[in-house]
Amino acid sequence: MPVDPHRRDAMITAAVLDLLRTKGPKAVNVEAVAAHAGVAKTTIYRRYRDREEMIAAALTSLTSPPPPPEQPSLEALLQWLIEQSVNAIEGGIGLGGVAALLTDEDTTFTEMIRALLLEHRAALARELDDAADPAELRDDLDIETLLDCIVGAYLAERARRGTVEPGWTQRVLHCLRPAFTEQPPKRRTS
Amino acid sequence: MPVDPHRRDAMITAAVLDLLRTKGPKAVNVEAVAAHAGVAKTTIYRRYRDREEMIAAALTSLTSPPPPPEQPSLEALLQWLIEQSVNAIEGGIGLGGVAALLTDEDTTFTEMIRALLLEHRAALARELDDAADPAELRDDLDIETLLDCIVGAYLAERARRGTVEPGWTQRVLHCLRPAFTEQPPKRRTS
Repeated sequence: MPVDPHRRDAMITAAVLDLLRTKGPKAVNVEAVAAHAGVAKTTIYRRYRDREEMIAAALTSLTSPPPPPEQPSLEALLQWLIEQSVNAIEGGIGLGGVAALLTDEDTTFTEMIRALLLEHRAALARELDDAADPAELRDDLDIETLLDCIVGAYLAERARRGTVEPGWTQRVLHCLRPAFTEQPPKRRTS
Repeated sequence: MPVDPHRRDAMITAAVLDLLRTKGPKAVNVEAVAAHAGVAKTTIYRRYRDREEMIAAALTSLTSPPPPPEQPSLEALLQWLIEQSVNAIEGGIGLGGVAALLTDEDTTFTEMIRALLLEHRAALARELDDAADPAELRDDLDIETLLDCIVGAYLAERARRGTVEPGWTQRVLHCLRPAFTEQPPKRRTS
């Protein structure tokens, strides 16, 4: 009985993510993914031109984040932002992928993932811009650095503790909320 | 001519840090450090009981952060906090060490470094507590999460960009300052 093509897509995606997260990007190539997913290499090449296209397709969480809730409160919008930032790791490249970026383990992977991360961050920044009431946000909001703080807080807690404690999203939201809304005092130029 | 013992200490420390940062914690053992430093294994064992003691001694930036400036402005104090947080990586375990923590590459190393990081953070939190005017800080300051945000922002920028742009400390300070000082609005309990 032929396997449903959508099921094959899912098997390939699962194999890419599993290899990426457990063995790092170097382990993710068409041959290994085919073996891990139990499909023929030609099945992969019928779908994807090359290794990069196959990896990018598996990382949909990085390429198409779900939109924020309709007419959200600022609270709900920031919660969405935090969840999506972390999802680039949890549902995406995993800690193995982050470790590989930090050490530039595989240059092709590094370049590809950096480009995807850039798109992902731009998409989040755009959504925040569209959905938030500008009067609620500080004038000099530095969304790039704040997104680094959010995703970084997740990495730091994982690095120093091994897990992320329950309630992490709410904790980070409470901690960082003033950094989204409050103007710091003007620097004295003495 | 005999080598100055202090110079030998420095050679051992440099070898530990170099191996840790370039090859990861698995590469740091007494044998490899002796070879890398060009000293005898006995020279190391005369100083340190074991591998762990040798690594801990090399990571003084994690075990004894320098004190903050005397009677600092809040601005200067937070700048010190950011610099010291990042120094745990730049002057300490390096990105290779962070990558190893994220993937738990070497359990002994992970446990040891987590204990050192815990001490380091507690020391920074204590210094902030001693040096800051409590009236300048928010009542519900969550210093643990904020330290994660700071060190994490550094990691995230390194991961997504490969470098940290000049002016990073000032940028993070400006971005996070309200998170240190401003109370967020009370959550509505509807």
